[in-house]
Amino acid sequence: MDYYSSHISKLIEELSKLPGVGAKSAQRLAFHIIGMSSEQVESLSDAIKDAKGNVHYCNECCTLTDGDICPICANERRDHKTIMVVENTRDLAAYEKTGKYNGVYHVLHGAISPMLGIGPADIKLKELIKRLEGDVNEVIIATNSTLEGETTAMYIAKLIKPTGIEVSRIASGVPVGGDLEYIDEVTLLRALEGRRTL
Amino acid sequence: MDYYSSHISKLIEELSKLPGVGAKSAQRLAFHIIGMSSEQVESLSDAIKDAKGNVHYCNECCTLTDGDICPICANERRDHKTIMVVENTRDLAAYEKTGKYNGVYHVLHGAISPMLGIGPADIKLKELIKRLEGDVNEVIIATNSTLEGETTAMYIAKLIKPTGIEVSRIASGVPVGGDLEYIDEVTLLRALEGRRTL
Repeated sequence: MDYYSSHISKLIEELSKLPGVGAKSAQRLAFHIIGMSSEQVESLSDAIKDAKGNVHYCNECCTLTDGDICPICANERRDHKTIMVVENTRDLAAYEKTGKYNGVYHVLHGAISPMLGIGPADIKLKELIKRLEGDVNEVIIATNSTLEGETTAMYIAKLIKPTGIEVSRIASGVPVGGDLEYIDEVTLLRALEGRRTL
Repeated sequence: MDYYSSHISKLIEELSKLPGVGAKSAQRLAFHIIGMSSEQVESLSDAIKDAKGNVHYCNECCTLTDGDICPICANERRDHKTIMVVENTRDLAAYEKTGKYNGVYHVLHGAISPMLGIGPADIKLKELIKRLEGDVNEVIIATNSTLEGETTAMYIAKLIKPTGIEVSRIASGVPVGGDLEYIDEVTLLRALEGRRTL
């Protein structure tokens, strides 16, 4: 990349380390950044440092937050006896966007994956078990509907069952608006198994 | 986006201003950045500031470079009497990668577009005209094969012709490896017009 100046090459190199940013888009982003105003560049660069420097795990639910406790855990109007277990903060945000869930969360920051060598000790599972010593009615497992997500769900369910706390798993089936013709067979069978009388 | 902490929201907001980065990918990038090591984050943030702070236009060809003159213009072994006109530094890099062009460049930083209100005064055209006062044999116009690129090429050609300097345009046609079946009609006609006797 010696047809670019060293500063541009360095920026392209740094940008291309980001997920989903290939060589071409790193170039495009780099030239866009050079074309931005100094204030905009300052603002972007500061946002990156600030987020890294100021974001920590919530002491309760392990989501990423600014303070010691995230706003959801700090909210007394939420049902602290219902805990939804999700893989990451983006999944938490996805359920928050529905605006219909009033319980709290627990963020695992990963899922058990023997293939990738990620075991139960590598995700925030100890922290979940510790929370169950308090007053908890139900744990809703909302890990992804992937091999890793399902493995994690089964593991957690086995772990919690002896405590007598109710454990549930979010439904798996045909997405709303989904056309059966284009849905994979496993999902179709899941939807059939999960059918409800009307 | 109040389900994220303010620092995360700010970072997502800044990232989503970048070209080709939508709301979803901004979130993915933000969480990736938070998960990076402090050194990596520092390195990214510094690269952004440094590129903006240290990159200027080359005094000769207007490409983006660190010093006053870019390495290509400073290279005495290159043919300074042949100038290839390109729209931006990425296009320059594309021709440099071929390793077969030994002339110098002129970077316009845009193309004439009446639709977008970009006129001849908004691109580095004055700078090109000034260079022609020196000893120049040929100007090769390598603007994109788009409406704007073609408009710009025609404008420059008209401007240069009276000076007696040779003006050429890179060929437009079927790309190497291209299947005629999937090539648009305009390109097919261009390729036909530009046919050469074998």
